[in-house]
Amino acid sequence: MLIVMKKGATEESVQGVVNAAEKRGYTARPIPGGDRVSIGILHNKGSVDAGHFLGLSGVKEVIPVTKPYKLVSREVKNENTVVRVGNVAFGDGSMPVIAGPCAVESEEQCLVIARAVKKAGAVMFRGGAFKPRTSPYSFQGMGKEGLEILAKVREETGLPVVTEVMDVENFDIVEEYADVVQIGTRNMQNFSLLKRAGKSGRPVMLKRGMSALLQEWLMAAEYIMEEGNEQVILCERGIRTFVRHSRNTLDLSVVPAAKKETHLPLVIDPSHAAGVRDQVIPLARASAAVGCDGMMIEVHHIPDEAVSDGAQSLYPDQFEKLMQKINQIHAISGDLSWE
Amino acid sequence: MLIVMKKGATEESVQGVVNAAEKRGYTARPIPGGDRVSIGILHNKGSVDAGHFLGLSGVKEVIPVTKPYKLVSREVKNENTVVRVGNVAFGDGSMPVIAGPCAVESEEQCLVIARAVKKAGAVMFRGGAFKPRTSPYSFQGMGKEGLEILAKVREETGLPVVTEVMDVENFDIVEEYADVVQIGTRNMQNFSLLKRAGKSGRPVMLKRGMSALLQEWLMAAEYIMEEGNEQVILCERGIRTFVRHSRNTLDLSVVPAAKKETHLPLVIDPSHAAGVRDQVIPLARASAAVGCDGMMIEVHHIPDEAVSDGAQSLYPDQFEKLMQKINQIHAISGDLSWE
Amino acid sequence: MLIVMKKGATEESVQGVVNAAEKRGYTARPIPGGDRVSIGILHNKGSVDAGHFLGLSGVKEVIPVTKPYKLVSREVKNENTVVRVGNVAFGDGSMPVIAGPCAVESEEQCLVIARAVKKAGAVMFRGGAFKPRTSPYSFQGMGKEGLEILAKVREETGLPVVTEVMDVENFDIVEEYADVVQIGTRNMQNFSLLKRAGKSGRPVMLKRGMSALLQEWLMAAEYIMEEGNEQVILCERGIRTFVRHSRNTLDLSVVPAAKKETHLPLVIDPSHAAGVRDQVIPLARASAAVGCDGMMIEVHHIPDEAVSDGAQSLYPDQFEKLMQKINQIHAISGDLSWE
Amino acid sequence: MLIVMKKGATEESVQGVVNAAEKRGYTARPIPGGDRVSIGILHNKGSVDAGHFLGLSGVKEVIPVTKPYKLVSREVKNENTVVRVGNVAFGDGSMPVIAGPCAVESEEQCLVIARAVKKAGAVMFRGGAFKPRTSPYSFQGMGKEGLEILAKVREETGLPVVTEVMDVENFDIVEEYADVVQIGTRNMQNFSLLKRAGKSGRPVMLKRGMSALLQEWLMAAEYIMEEGNEQVILCERGIRTFVRHSRNTLDLSVVPAAKKETHLPLVIDPSHAAGVRDQVIPLARASAAVGCDGMMIEVHHIPDEAVSDGAQSLYPDQFEKLMQKINQIHAISGDLSWE
Repeated sequence: MLIVMKKGATEESVQGVVNAAEKRGYTARPIPGGDRVSIGILHNKGSVDAGHFLGLSGVKEVIPVTKPYKLVSREVKNENTVVRVGNVAFGDGSMPVIAGPCAVESEEQCLVIARAVKKAGAVMFRGGAFKPRTSPYSFQGMGKEGLEILAKVREETGLPVVTEVMDVENFDIVEEYADVVQIGTRNMQNFSLLKRAGKSGRPVMLKRGMSALLQEWLMAAEYIMEEGNEQVILCERGIRTFVRHSRNTLDLSVVPAAKKETHLPLVIDPSHAAGVRDQVIPLARASAAVGCDGMMIEVHHIPDEAVSDGAQSLYPDQFEKLMQKINQIHAISGDLSWE
Repeated sequence: MLIVMKKGATEESVQGVVNAAEKRGYTARPIPGGDRVSIGILHNKGSVDAGHFLGLSGVKEVIPVTKPYKLVSREVKNENTVVRVGNVAFGDGSMPVIAGPCAVESEEQCLVIARAVKKAGAVMFRGGAFKPRTSPYSFQGMGKEGLEILAKVREETGLPVVTEVMDVENFDIVEEYADVVQIGTRNMQNFSLLKRAGKSGRPVMLKRGMSALLQEWLMAAEYIMEEGNEQVILCERGIRTFVRHSRNTLDLSVVPAAKKETHLPLVIDPSHAAGVRDQVIPLARASAAVGCDGMMIEVHHIPDEAVSDGAQSLYPDQFEKLMQKINQIHAISGDLSWE
Repeated sequence: MLIVMKKGATEESVQGVVNAAEKRGYTARPIPGGDRVSIGILHNKGSVDAGHFLGLSGVKEVIPVTKPYKLVSREVKNENTVVRVGNVAFGDGSMPVIAGPCAVESEEQCLVIARAVKKAGAVMFRGGAFKPRTSPYSFQGMGKEGLEILAKVREETGLPVVTEVMDVENFDIVEEYADVVQIGTRNMQNFSLLKRAGKSGRPVMLKRGMSALLQEWLMAAEYIMEEGNEQVILCERGIRTFVRHSRNTLDLSVVPAAKKETHLPLVIDPSHAAGVRDQVIPLARASAAVGCDGMMIEVHHIPDEAVSDGAQSLYPDQFEKLMQKINQIHAISGDLSWE
Repeated sequence: MLIVMKKGATEESVQGVVNAAEKRGYTARPIPGGDRVSIGILHNKGSVDAGHFLGLSGVKEVIPVTKPYKLVSREVKNENTVVRVGNVAFGDGSMPVIAGPCAVESEEQCLVIARAVKKAGAVMFRGGAFKPRTSPYSFQGMGKEGLEILAKVREETGLPVVTEVMDVENFDIVEEYADVVQIGTRNMQNFSLLKRAGKSGRPVMLKRGMSALLQEWLMAAEYIMEEGNEQVILCERGIRTFVRHSRNTLDLSVVPAAKKETHLPLVIDPSHAAGVRDQVIPLARASAAVGCDGMMIEVHHIPDEAVSDGAQSLYPDQFEKLMQKINQIHAISGDLSWE
């Protein structure tokens, strides 16, 4: 941490900051500059809270230097983490594609879609049994029955399944049925849920919060890892911006930025970012090209009748064509060395 | 809902939309315009999901008209809801001020601060026992012991207390000790928590999510009300923007906008929006002037030693001066008729 | 335009809106709904200003339906506009790449870079002679001398050149030397400059403003076209968001959205969006995959010594490898039919 | 500037950064920390371009310390700048209110409004003669005729006038008629226009760009001051955010932040931030309370017939009541010491 003093800050002020730092067990080293003094805070373990210094006399600005995360950091562990789910691997240079409907609606619906996406090359199935909905009057998911349908899909098709868990109460049951447990955008900083996920034996797919800084997202992953679960898959799904032509803004620059900071695998969900299928297709191609560790795409056999998110679900034949393109693009883009 | 067709959309496309609407039980009325046909969807109960129509042939755009909320809506209930906590009332035209430290640190700390803020005119005490922290390595709060300290404060000073609940697991115990239960920014769309809050007998203070649209915030309140708890207090605390000179951007325009849409009371927390005390003071004055139903302000007797958010906590004497100003400003601004 | 009345709005209010509309020459048609009346405004030429109705008695909301642009609209002209610059074509399904340094620094610098990028497959050269800089103390460009160097580059290499014009005063001279005149991000709504560009015989590359809605960007292009210049190339270069891990957020979803609305070609500048070269490379791949009509990439032979934007400039050998990848990706992604 | 090296960066990398710094004339001082080396750049005049170091081997991050502005900085000049226009003073602790219509429509319109706002206590008149409009088909202002009307208003009422200049071409004529020349939001980084304003003898009101960081805004003011014009008035008018309930988000936290950084006066325009008059009134109160050096408010005698921005214009009687409130609030809030 670097504490920048105001121009003309008195020696007392400088000493006051040094004392405050030492009181908290840090080493403080004043660095005289041309215009003003700065004070470096050294020998801190982990990051230092800017708030401890921001209000002190003579302090102009407090600049964090060390990043606050440890376990997720590539500086701590340089090799990519590979999360394995059956034969599927996230983080080994391949680009597994997860596909399925937004919500589990019926066994038949799921089986029809699962067979179609498997044929097209998807290696994992997605489908929501517990649905976070902005409105209490919207369909909230089939719950346990939905989970049982997912198990049936796995049994019939061999595809492992990923589904969202919305709370600690239902974690046990979701964990029992799912191969990968998903924590949704709105729960990225539900710290109780993160801690519970950290105690799970299942890999966790952690979606980025709608306005989460990269650092906050990684800190959420740190919560999971800190409890002992190292199988975390990050998932970018678009951020909230001033833009109105898409539901969210897919932030592809976060991929190279995140891969520099962390060894965790990162998959991209272009469906939720786009909100309409005409955007999902080009954004899926772009996601393959930017270089990700997997993708999650919504597919529905009769999107116009889907109970939720029909407009962003691909038709099975669109998905099939898309799979060919993104696999070719991945083959070209591949061999990424992020650092 | 208004469905705008593309220029030159065929009659088949128009009929397809009409059929899709009728299949879901709505009435569809085509409205020929100069350039294109639009189709009004009528007789819907509640709002219609745009996704059901967005992907249909010939559809250019889908424009929601009806707002999706019911119970929170001022169109449903015109009179202001007044939430009463002991002698304190939110929503009756008064501007009660809640004050206290970010986190409960010790009984002594709380009592010293509580006496000071009470003397200055605060009518409710705040203090976090369970703390949502970005980092798992930061102080996570005193938990149950913190709640007991809050009870002690209430007993000694007569001030009712508000404190945050972070999960369903701890709801019972927080509810037992707190007079008002707070749901924090990061949990605004933790729907399981909202539903639990809806079953509580305690008033709920619902903080706005960091990038929540007004409509999403009101829908979160609708979740609580829909479960039977009508005592909801909204709390604006700043939103995430591109800005870097303050921690968040306090969105005061949301006050008149919200008061038009809803009958629920709205309080403002300038402390979390600002992040530094030099901004808290002017923003608190602005909050009083814009016309709110209460305010929540962080105060600490030794901010430099606070375990969290020291930089944004006011000194007790600053708070005392501020109270005088904001009460005067409220008196001048008052007599607001929002609609 | 659709005017939504409040629940329980009186007949007088409805009539008042109808009168106001007719007074301005529109046709107003009340549409009774379940809960409330809406009023459609028909037979308007171009778009109607929401402000004319927003303050009227009983009006709850005003929803624009018709888009305000005409000449740029794909509804008016369905075929893609192809802008030709010598042998280079923007909008015909090819993906020409423009490359060069941020700023023209010297003849030698430009020639070295131009030869390198031409060898790698670039078909146009970029370089700033007039530089918009946040600080008045930063290098402001070589001005006319820079333009002469660009002309020399064209002569020696055969590459047409694109360079930025910052004001009406220098438009004549920039136009004299440049093959394509660029209007920068900060000038996207400099309407005087847009009008001057509309009178030019040169193609204009119009960069998107830092926080421009798609509609505002297209309206800026409309300003140029309305003055008679139909050769407009749109350029996405990243938008301002809350994100801190990249200089701007490259908004790739704007590509499919824009291509639906307009027939104008759209190129992408990943260099300014990223700000650091480790992000430029993956974002350039993503840009090729999303499906654009060209790309603009910064290259410098000694980036560490560049007078500006060195950190985002590629080394020539990086650029050469990238060119191979993006051409392959374009070939795969190609054959886009946007609508 | 502080250059943070990666963990385990080699001595060669560190030396490489030191050499690069010295080559550009700076002093570089390595600061060994616990985990990594940082390098302080000293003795720089003005700010250092991060881009010069960001791409060097072993560099993890570059953190600017010194602010890039000089003339606008409160560290350079501690006393508030007071800009005087006739008897009106911006920056002396008073809160002069500028009022008038969005656009000059006719002599009669302006005189009626000017008399009304003067009676209510406004001390300066506003009105646009050259109008920046998103659409080329919207009313573009009366031009020179509008300026003559403004001169007539000044003559008749004694109120000085402020009006916008959109380009260098019309600067002479605007300067001739206006008492204060306004540079609009869309032109905040029109550097040619800023330089011309810097050569003017008139005070300049510089509106904040729609997504301008505080530092960028101050750098725009620096452009004006650097050319010799020290009479700059900053004007906050709302920023672009994800919010949809108001046209822009009025950023009141920028006031204390800016007043710390600069000695220049700052006025607030709540009308453009709000976009609808029901929000203008409470936001104007809030602006008075936060502590500004003036306010600019739109008033129209027949808003429903205004050619532009009618919905945000106050009726004269609303304005009169508002004036009383904001003057009282200013009197209470006053005596601000920002630093």
